[in-house]
Amino acid sequence: MVKKWVYAFEEGNANQRALLGGKGANLAEMTNINLPVPQGITVTTEACIDYYTCHEQISDEIREQIFEYLEKLEVKTGKTLGGEHNPLLVSVRSGAMISMPGMMDTILNLGLNPTTVEAIAKKTNNRRFAYDSYRRFIMMFSDVALGIERALFDNELEAIKEKNGYKVDTELTVDDLVGLVAKYKEIFLQEMGYEFPDDPKVQLMIAVEAIFKSWNNQRAITYRKLNNISHTLGTAVNIQSMVYGNMGDTSGTGVAFTRNPATGEKAVFGEYLINAQGEDVVAGIRTPAPIEKLKEDMPEVYDQFIKIADILENHYKDMQDIEFTIEEGKLYMLQTRNGKRTAAASLKVAVDLVNEGKIDKKTALTRVDASSITQLLSPQFDAEVLKNATVAATGLPASPGAAVGKVYFTAEEASARAQAGEEVILVRKETSPEDIEGMHYANGILTARGGMTSHAAVVARGMGKCCVAGCEAVKVFEEEKYFLIGETKVAEGDIISIDGTTGNVYIGTIPTIPANVGGDFGTLMAWADEYRRMGIRTNADSPADAKTALYFGAEGIGLCRTEHMFFDSERILQVRKMICADTVEQRVEALDKIMPMQKGDFYEMFKILEGRPMTVRLLDPPLHEFLPQEEKDIIQIAEELEISVDKLKLRIADLHEVNPMLGHRGCRLSVTYPEIARMQTTAIILAAIDAKKDGFDPQVEIMIPLAGGKPELEYVMNIVRECADKLIAENEADVEYKLGTMIEIPRAALLSDEVAEIADFFSFGTNDLTQMTMGFSRDDAGKFIGEYLDHNLLEHDPFQSIDQKGVGKLVQMSVKDGRSVKPELKCGVCGEHGGDPASIEFFDTCGLNYVSCSPYRVPVARLAAAQATIKHEDMLF
Amino acid sequence: MVKKWVYAFEEGNANQRALLGGKGANLAEMTNINLPVPQGITVTTEACIDYYTCHEQISDEIREQIFEYLEKLEVKTGKTLGGEHNPLLVSVRSGAMISMPGMMDTILNLGLNPTTVEAIAKKTNNRRFAYDSYRRFIMMFSDVALGIERALFDNELEAIKEKNGYKVDTELTVDDLVGLVAKYKEIFLQEMGYEFPDDPKVQLMIAVEAIFKSWNNQRAITYRKLNNISHTLGTAVNIQSMVYGNMGDTSGTGVAFTRNPATGEKAVFGEYLINAQGEDVVAGIRTPAPIEKLKEDMPEVYDQFIKIADILENHYKDMQDIEFTIEEGKLYMLQTRNGKRTAAASLKVAVDLVNEGKIDKKTALTRVDASSITQLLSPQFDAEVLKNATVAATGLPASPGAAVGKVYFTAEEASARAQAGEEVILVRKETSPEDIEGMHYANGILTARGGMTSHAAVVARGMGKCCVAGCEAVKVFEEEKYFLIGETKVAEGDIISIDGTTGNVYIGTIPTIPANVGGDFGTLMAWADEYRRMGIRTNADSPADAKTALYFGAEGIGLCRTEHMFFDSERILQVRKMICADTVEQRVEALDKIMPMQKGDFYEMFKILEGRPMTVRLLDPPLHEFLPQEEKDIIQIAEELEISVDKLKLRIADLHEVNPMLGHRGCRLSVTYPEIARMQTTAIILAAIDAKKDGFDPQVEIMIPLAGGKPELEYVMNIVRECADKLIAENEADVEYKLGTMIEIPRAALLSDEVAEIADFFSFGTNDLTQMTMGFSRDDAGKFIGEYLDHNLLEHDPFQSIDQKGVGKLVQMSVKDGRSVKPELKCGVCGEHGGDPASIEFFDTCGLNYVSCSPYRVPVARLAAAQATIKHEDMLF
Repeated sequence: MVKKWVYAFEEGNANQRALLGGKGANLAEMTNINLPVPQGITVTTEACIDYYTCHEQISDEIREQIFEYLEKLEVKTGKTLGGEHNPLLVSVRSGAMISMPGMMDTILNLGLNPTTVEAIAKKTNNRRFAYDSYRRFIMMFSDVALGIERALFDNELEAIKEKNGYKVDTELTVDDLVGLVAKYKEIFLQEMGYEFPDDPKVQLMIAVEAIFKSWNNQRAITYRKLNNISHTLGTAVNIQSMVYGNMGDTSGTGVAFTRNPATGEKAVFGEYLINAQGEDVVAGIRTPAPIEKLKEDMPEVYDQFIKIADILENHYKDMQDIEFTIEEGKLYMLQTRNGKRTAAASLKVAVDLVNEGKIDKKTALTRVDASSITQLLSPQFDAEVLKNATVAATGLPASPGAAVGKVYFTAEEASARAQAGEEVILVRKETSPEDIEGMHYANGILTARGGMTSHAAVVARGMGKCCVAGCEAVKVFEEEKYFLIGETKVAEGDIISIDGTTGNVYIGTIPTIPANVGGDFGTLMAWADEYRRMGIRTNADSPADAKTALYFGAEGIGLCRTEHMFFDSERILQVRKMICADTVEQRVEALDKIMPMQKGDFYEMFKILEGRPMTVRLLDPPLHEFLPQEEKDIIQIAEELEISVDKLKLRIADLHEVNPMLGHRGCRLSVTYPEIARMQTTAIILAAIDAKKDGFDPQVEIMIPLAGGKPELEYVMNIVRECADKLIAENEADVEYKLGTMIEIPRAALLSDEVAEIADFFSFGTNDLTQMTMGFSRDDAGKFIGEYLDHNLLEHDPFQSIDQKGVGKLVQMSVKDGRSVKPELKCGVCGEHGGDPASIEFFDTCGLNYVSCSPYRVPVARLAAAQATIKHEDMLF
Repeated sequence: MVKKWVYAFEEGNANQRALLGGKGANLAEMTNINLPVPQGITVTTEACIDYYTCHEQISDEIREQIFEYLEKLEVKTGKTLGGEHNPLLVSVRSGAMISMPGMMDTILNLGLNPTTVEAIAKKTNNRRFAYDSYRRFIMMFSDVALGIERALFDNELEAIKEKNGYKVDTELTVDDLVGLVAKYKEIFLQEMGYEFPDDPKVQLMIAVEAIFKSWNNQRAITYRKLNNISHTLGTAVNIQSMVYGNMGDTSGTGVAFTRNPATGEKAVFGEYLINAQGEDVVAGIRTPAPIEKLKEDMPEVYDQFIKIADILENHYKDMQDIEFTIEEGKLYMLQTRNGKRTAAASLKVAVDLVNEGKIDKKTALTRVDASSITQLLSPQFDAEVLKNATVAATGLPASPGAAVGKVYFTAEEASARAQAGEEVILVRKETSPEDIEGMHYANGILTARGGMTSHAAVVARGMGKCCVAGCEAVKVFEEEKYFLIGETKVAEGDIISIDGTTGNVYIGTIPTIPANVGGDFGTLMAWADEYRRMGIRTNADSPADAKTALYFGAEGIGLCRTEHMFFDSERILQVRKMICADTVEQRVEALDKIMPMQKGDFYEMFKILEGRPMTVRLLDPPLHEFLPQEEKDIIQIAEELEISVDKLKLRIADLHEVNPMLGHRGCRLSVTYPEIARMQTTAIILAAIDAKKDGFDPQVEIMIPLAGGKPELEYVMNIVRECADKLIAENEADVEYKLGTMIEIPRAALLSDEVAEIADFFSFGTNDLTQMTMGFSRDDAGKFIGEYLDHNLLEHDPFQSIDQKGVGKLVQMSVKDGRSVKPELKCGVCGEHGGDPASIEFFDTCGLNYVSCSPYRVPVARLAAAQATIKHEDMLF
């Protein structure tokens, strides 16, 4: 049986996104619910995959099916590709399963050639329109399909405009356009070495192949990498008969959302341009009019549009992003899709749709991208300060948020500076797909041109990045690296603040305050808490962290890294004395001074936690991390320690390690220096005893890091238990504690049945477990991990999202083996993966009891955990 | 039911070594075959374990059983412990399952007190003997059971001898001895704070407990660690009625082997002292007479002894080490055990016993300690040079071999210097158990006193260490750190050569030549090859290594580390140029110069291998290993490279890694610098093509190191395959090659099913697999691994013998998963564990196809593999 590679729109439906791409599936769906869609066909994503499988060749079978369906389209439309009288012109667009704005390339007006252009001119009685379409087609085809530099064409256009003193394109005469077509064809010949193809079938196949190729262009690959989209999905190709928004003043084109994509407000929100093609709106070259104005221009069309928007939203049960064209008064729907939105909008839309009875809570929970909601937690500008701040300029509030940073004018520079640790704002005249990486790394984006649906605005909202767009008061000189607002000059490296919620731009730094976690946010989080199976704890090393995390909904502390408490300036001296001690006695003396300080912190944290559990990890890093490396620091610190510089240097040399990651750290320190473990145990237990006396019900969990097996864990547990039990007995206190371990060495994961015999709990230290299981030093992997991602040798950075196959397998084995011995064994995660939604989903399927993440990731984790449970509802633990 | 903690000799047998210890089991066995053994009882090893389990308390049940059996012994012997007329005196000796010479403590004459000493004096009519025994008992009991310094007693003895001008102990009068007893008791009171116990029952229980305690003294622990003996076996205690070799000239004591323990020659070999106790022989204080002299002294006893020796060897079917005492003309057997022997003797005895029809080949193979046979491969002194060399002195040929090194006079110094890389000879007046560690690290041992069964001789033979003992011409001044031979002074750090086969000592260095692998050695190896299941390959990086390994029986090269070929002085310059190249072109240019050199080596190796396989590993170490670190080297090398010092420093800084072990190395280099993989592939394949043309049938296996999963392995395999196939096609050559990977990253082991889909073979790199699975940096673990071993947190150093539980589990999983996909998957090991017998046994049980080890370990591996197969005969693969 022959495989079906091509579908007519009426053959598909919205569930076939994987096969037809999002755009194709939605065009099919709209066709089937009788909305006015220009007819067309979709070449499947499977054809794209086939193309790559067959060494980048479109098979004869696929080619034949395309033309077979094209003939049917000709019958349906009564038009003929290349026809002398009523020629069929088509758009050719990509459409992947997951929408990638700006990533993919579109060709309009395909089918034009010397014959058909005359036919169109005659048929429309608009020669100017016909030749304008023709020159646009040649340019787009050359640029998009064959990679000829667009500037070559633009220069010709500019030259003619300049020569004739035209200001806008519409001033071009028919003769100008005919001349441009000839010029464009010359450019094509010169660049390609052969004539521009006049045969529409040849044009079509080149265009289809170009779209297949564009699946693997650098921009697309980068986007997929940034968004964790698989490279093996492929894209579909939509071939659709053309309709024209540029046929005069009763024509137009626009884009609209059924709700406000920035705030989520329930009201159609969009823009349109009269006498324009779709690309004109997206490119942001002309500033479009708000959709409400259409009511005045074409009231019937407006009413029809609003009705259709409503139908679509009800049909898809989600906010839609719609593209439409009006051809001589007749409305056509070109595309609908679930609209990209800011996190805030996403939240509001989800909650509103539940309140409107359109979706249920579970659906609402799956509608919000978990990782996006950190944005809502980022501080906002302090309203008090804003009152008195001078607004330097105001643009469109394209994507909400508050951003402060140094100004950079190219994506490369912004990206490099941000990765070097600077706070960065990317400032551009307008952005293009090449800027995506820079936008990703910047705190915020400011553009001088473009509307609410311009590239910058759409992408920034997708990224949850603060963006002020179309700020015309800002005159950008990208080459010269500065911008002007009136006479104020802001140069590269100067600091500005931008407010994506108001569109305001400020010179200098505006201070910020914490986000509000009530309202829709609170509602959604409460729903998440209702559904999720896993607990959410936080990694907190200080009372301040603990407070923040509880504010965001943490249910306890999953990891308190005691060494972070050592860096306080008062304490570090004693820590260093301890490290440089010659005898156990000297070491104990220094430790005795540290103890009360640690105890104080623990007490505060038990108090803040009010009966929620706290897992305290004993000292983990190698001791050399506490000693200075630079000559001048060594001299100074030797003085502070009252020892000779030589002695300090000797100790530093002594502690030097070839591979500190695999060295003398974790519980190995407790084996060689049991007095450190005793000091820390004392601090924890005495704090708990005091907290108990003061009525705070401390839930103490002491965690021993880096154990490789049962004997060493038991050895250190005995040290801790002996010390703790003695203190509890001496104080006649009613304090209990749990003793567990981190599973972060592969061996411990492999021998979890033994380890579980003695441990009260396991906490997976997935950072180190990843380092050891994959043999990747986190500090060094940067040298090759980029190439690994580029060559698809890794699906993603394993330090950002857990390597489920390898490291994850160890976690699964460990939980299973551990619980085979101790069914009630509590298992959690305290690596940074605890805040990554994909990892959280995986951990949920492993049956973990909780994840622990940094305070600002707590809401992400709450939502992601709920989503995981909803997705894997049928799994039992 | 009450547990049986005590056995009379007649209740046990030789199979109960685990329960009764080796000594106890053999005393029982000898009792049962009616040999003259002084009657006694054995407290089991389980009682020792019970002692440690019960917080170092001997339980009432055990105590009661001891005295119950003691009563039976009293009945049997007609003597009474503490009796006024016919008192029972006993020896109390330890006896573990595995004999540990010198490790355990013996107490003789227990039961003596003011009453019984008089009874003995009366009964033997030898007051001198009675009081001499008494003072010896007090001293031994105080020293051995209670740790009072022996020198305190010796000083008293010396003082009396000096005062009276005595030269030897036998000149002491009865009064002297009575006085000494009193003095000794005073010392006891002063040291212990209580009177010396007169109650024999109290004496006995203290002695039993002392033996239990001695199981965990430092010497015993060290010995067990050095010999991989479990710390949880425990020791038995033998309580045996005394017989006396020191009752005059018709009494004596001796030790003998049924064959020569140094050479294996078939002839009773031993020594005895007239009028002496056993300790006198072992301590080497008086030089004993050879056993043949007994024929003259006491012909009947000699004949009886020879007959018994024969009975014992036939009974045990192995060479016996026998202790005997003659009490007033009557022969008693005190102990028999399988005799410790040199590797050479072990080999000869095993082969001879087969030839004599006493054991079969399989038994013979299990009789030789696999790790000991490397000794036989160590070079011997060049006979030609020896002819003209001046023999400075001649001692006893106590343990064969040739050793050259710098002279050190304390075990500590010898041990420290040897660990720092020096070649060391330990020179002592006589050795004691405290010297074991120093003996272990020294190349050879030279002592001035003691016979063939002195401590030095016995221990050295056990260790397979060259030893010249009792070299009386050598006057040792340990404190002053020199020795004299006549007037020649040899100071600490001077070099000497000693020949343990002749007993000769030479000043300076005597050159050596390779060992002979024929004779008995060849016979046993041929038997091993008959039985073993696994192949034995070698790790060889040069034609010379390959030759040596084939000489020792390697069946191919399991690991050729190409980077070792890079360090040749001609090549390293090009390697550095390659590393410092700015462009791919420059890099390729340098690589092109290295290629022919590598090709030349590979060609030579294919030629030497004559059709045996060679696994070549692509470049593995991080590139910074090839660059200098020291300022002066940097300056010099920058000049050689014709680049600026700053540039070289920049490159070095660029390549610096925090954890190089987990960094940019292995196949990661091939991903980022595919041209290196191509150069190496070219060298290998062109060499194979040439070798093929020249008729050498090269078996090419290319190994890709450090893969973490299938995608990266596939990526690098494609680079290699593309290059190799092109060369083979271009040259129209009939060369085949296999492409496989090292499994050394835990992730690769976990995902072996996937990896096996594309790999032709797996080679376990157990060194790195150990580092990553256990989280131990080999370079840094020294800082804590000692404490881990001391606290029994590790059973052994996992870099010496594989961690079977953890790392081994990964190996097992990997083999199983890999073969589930590809049943014919060839699996080998190329870590250093490939030469360790315990690891080899484990690998055999994993079903590996081969192990690969360093050339000198090849015979060890052949034998160990045969032993593994014999032990696990029933396992099917």
